[in-house]
Amino acid sequence: MKNLALIIATGASLVLPAHAEEPAPIPSPGEIVAAAPASDWIAIAPSDLLVMDMAPDAKGKERRVVIQLMPAPFSRGWITNIRTLAAAHWWDGTSVNRVQDNYVAQWGDATEKKPLPRGLETVAESGYEVDEPSGFTAPGLPLHYQARPSDPSPAKVGGHIVFRDNPGWNYGSFYRGFPYVGAMNPHQSKIWPIHCYGAVGVGRNMSPDTGSGAELYAVIGHATRHLDRNVAVVGRVVSGIEYLSSLPRGTGSLGFYEDEAERVPIRSIRLAGDLPASERPKFEYLSTESGSFARYAEARANRRDPFFNKPAGGADICNIPVPVRPGR
Amino acid sequence: MKNLALIIATGASLVLPAHAEEPAPIPSPGEIVAAAPASDWIAIAPSDLLVMDMAPDAKGKERRVVIQLMPAPFSRGWITNIRTLAAAHWWDGTSVNRVQDNYVAQWGDATEKKPLPRGLETVAESGYEVDEPSGFTAPGLPLHYQARPSDPSPAKVGGHIVFRDNPGWNYGSFYRGFPYVGAMNPHQSKIWPIHCYGAVGVGRNMSPDTGSGAELYAVIGHATRHLDRNVAVVGRVVSGIEYLSSLPRGTGSLGFYEDEAERVPIRSIRLAGDLPASERPKFEYLSTESGSFARYAEARANRRDPFFNKPAGGADICNIPVPVRPGR
Repeated sequence: MKNLALIIATGASLVLPAHAEEPAPIPSPGEIVAAAPASDWIAIAPSDLLVMDMAPDAKGKERRVVIQLMPAPFSRGWITNIRTLAAAHWWDGTSVNRVQDNYVAQWGDATEKKPLPRGLETVAESGYEVDEPSGFTAPGLPLHYQARPSDPSPAKVGGHIVFRDNPGWNYGSFYRGFPYVGAMNPHQSKIWPIHCYGAVGVGRNMSPDTGSGAELYAVIGHATRHLDRNVAVVGRVVSGIEYLSSLPRGTGSLGFYEDEAERVPIRSIRLAGDLPASERPKFEYLSTESGSFARYAEARANRRDPFFNKPAGGADICNIPVPVRPGR
Repeated sequence: MKNLALIIATGASLVLPAHAEEPAPIPSPGEIVAAAPASDWIAIAPSDLLVMDMAPDAKGKERRVVIQLMPAPFSRGWITNIRTLAAAHWWDGTSVNRVQDNYVAQWGDATEKKPLPRGLETVAESGYEVDEPSGFTAPGLPLHYQARPSDPSPAKVGGHIVFRDNPGWNYGSFYRGFPYVGAMNPHQSKIWPIHCYGAVGVGRNMSPDTGSGAELYAVIGHATRHLDRNVAVVGRVVSGIEYLSSLPRGTGSLGFYEDEAERVPIRSIRLAGDLPASERPKFEYLSTESGSFARYAEARANRRDPFFNKPAGGADICNIPVPVRPGR
């Protein structure tokens, strides 16, 4: 790998072996992912991919952001609404209106006057959490209530990696490609999706409003975990987050663009399944129920590849991004 | 506050009360900061401010990034080198060469051939950690070893807020404006600075190299905590992080710009104290030893302002950014 070799030889750059191609004595997280068998990768259904095409940038470059919607049982009401909005082409001609540094990029109707399509659900605040279904985790791999606050994290439970959550009384894990958290309470079995980098959530008014799904944001900074259970998480960006995260920051209150000309036009948002087959983006994620993912997560928490001297012994659940690659 | 009122009235936007101006029934973190007495704000010494002027952007807008260097006892060798490099005008004419999404923006000499000034120290890897000095915390406020892993975090200790660190066997707190972590081990009293959003660190080659300080990076995504104790942290951006975080991402390996033309020229980097008095930027930070900061941190961990329904009960130490404001 020419680039890396140059860096090592001259010593002037920060070397990060996640992308290194030479086999390391102990595999890096990236090498574990690269070695995962095809059977550990899961194709994302076209009905679960939301494709946002922004106007090209000043140099004419296309800007496509692709979002994976969360699986059941999470956030169903909002996700139904988002599919309705996409089918109605409601976002076409709207814009990215707010970019707040180390926080969120937000899009929707800046005029706040565009009529919503018929048939949107009003989702109750109770929808921020869901009951943990029986059989939620892979058969034979009981996951919950097994990570005690006194355990160093991540703990291995039945082949899964279980992360203790900040602030320690909850546990965290992954389900079908998404991080979630549950209460460490045997009398309660609620779980909820969380705000990591790239998470997509639903803007709302003050309680009891929960938002329709028409106003969306993506996290472009440190995980905004204080929003968990306060705002609905509906998915995560699997491609093109850089087209949101590198936008100029808004100078108005909360990072809103003050000048209309600063807004970034959205040409269209569609479900991939509604695009012609030849235009559908395809992505796969590394099954979070696979052994490859468990090894990857463990390696993220305990970096032993050559660059690192001191493995951390644990990792924030939001520092274990779920690997995604183009599909076939 | 016109903008916010509009948002509330129409209900289409995500409302974030951190910046709200109306008095809330229970103060928001932003309101606590706004109400802090002048005596809780500390002026940052000109010798601790590193001023980086990048070339203006395509629209001719000035881009100044200001970095606060860490106080003793942290990372002294590298910080001495950085002052030497700034005094030698070494960075003038160098560039930002790497921007990796959700990771770092990195600057230095892209040619990797520019001779370094004389007199730079070679810092040992042991410098990543420091001995916790006696009297390290404010008098009468013993801080360390008092946050047990089984405590919900943050815990109040003698008026300070103490954060349990991920993965739970360390504790976290703040010292003179910077977050740090220490081992929960009565037989060891090492502490070390950590990589939160905006942290500035020293690029290096493979161990035992620790970097000179000539190659620097700033964290522009979720806290890169796996780099703690593996790379030197020397400061944090207190103004202008958006000029780094909104740069186009590099398409080369590790986010390096592939085309020389993509690099962002650095006109100069100076210590504020070496600028003419009339041109010196001035900043103050909210004393992390103050009661105001303790209340702010508690409020960040337990949001009770009107937008929030469920206080989290804790916060990642990296989600408690130290407040900074322009000085006088």
